[in-house]
Amino acid sequence: MIHKSIRINSSKKCELINITNQIRAIIKENNIEDALVNISTKHTTSAIIINEDEMGLKEDMLNVLKEIIPDRNYMHDRIDNNAKSHLMAMITKPNQTIPVINGELSLGTWQSIFFLELDGPRLNREVIISIL
Amino acid sequence: MIHKSIRINSSKKCELINITNQIRAIIKENNIEDALVNISTKHTTSAIIINEDEMGLKEDMLNVLKEIIPDRNYMHDRIDNNAKSHLMAMITKPNQTIPVINGELSLGTWQSIFFLELDGPRLNREVIISIL
Amino acid sequence: MIHKSIRINSSKKCELINITNQIRAIIKENNIEDALVNISTKHTTSAIIINEDEMGLKEDMLNVLKEIIPDRNYMHDRIDNNAKSHLMAMITKPNQTIPVINGELSLGTWQSIFFLELDGPRLNREVIISIL
Repeated sequence: MIHKSIRINSSKKCELINITNQIRAIIKENNIEDALVNISTKHTTSAIIINEDEMGLKEDMLNVLKEIIPDRNYMHDRIDNNAKSHLMAMITKPNQTIPVINGELSLGTWQSIFFLELDGPRLNREVIISIL
Repeated sequence: MIHKSIRINSSKKCELINITNQIRAIIKENNIEDALVNISTKHTTSAIIINEDEMGLKEDMLNVLKEIIPDRNYMHDRIDNNAKSHLMAMITKPNQTIPVINGELSLGTWQSIFFLELDGPRLNREVIISIL
Repeated sequence: MIHKSIRINSSKKCELINITNQIRAIIKENNIEDALVNISTKHTTSAIIINEDEMGLKEDMLNVLKEIIPDRNYMHDRIDNNAKSHLMAMITKPNQTIPVINGELSLGTWQSIFFLELDGPRLNREVIISIL
């Protein structure tokens, strides 16, 4: 069992940051052959998603999330002015688990793994990569 | 590999029930050091989510789910009058997998694990905690 | 660690295909007793979901997804005319992880595992079943 922490700096309120190569590097450095890899964010206003890394689609994903969760005075905004960020995280998800087969992350041609920032910009967001 | 079943009673139609301490207790009792823990509900009108345990936010989460899935005469309602509950479950999710590192559930400061009841009140909802 | 690939042909644009029995067969053939099973799609316009296999509910699930993600000219449509398919995949999810206990997939009475096609019809969609 290997656990590695990766740190991410975001530069926008909402942003998709491709972390696939960082995960591939951890698999390679540790000579993993066959495994499950779990990618978990430690933050309630972020998510881990798997989709295509195409510039237009990334904008579409952020726009549609902002639209599904309407702008509004939420109750949580009395405590901390980021309810919408928590709610966008609720319908995406904080972790993904996928296989490693013959030393390779088992992703399809168009699949990339993203850290989804929903309340940035922030320094030092932490994602744990666990390999079993 | 350890599997434990936990039983949950809900008291409302829709409700977020924090089960983090029950999961922590299972990790401690079994002296788990490094692992993956999987939390899976066995019910199609419930979900497992990870987010902040703040009273206002919990209301916001339930309200926004009820709004994303509109009130309507769904086809499943001819069989069993709870289509909306199934549909709210579809956009949240029935399981989460996260690491255990040095004997501790790897959660961020604001992360709690919830059983999300979407068709309560119910007695004896079952969630399986599996540790590998 | 066992990895098996299953191949799926879809016959509609959007379709829920029950793959529970194929996963059960892999568990049985390999005499798995206690494990975690991970089910991952390799396609960005598909998802893996767990819900009830009832004809009306399956229509409701597809209809509500098409409604949550509105018809629109998305930016990704300039590249490939399937942005809506990617966006419906984003709010469902590409993988599920659940326990196997005493040789049985740990599903509740009403739970089935589905491949959710969101950009069909397609031949030879690939889903990886990994058992640890």
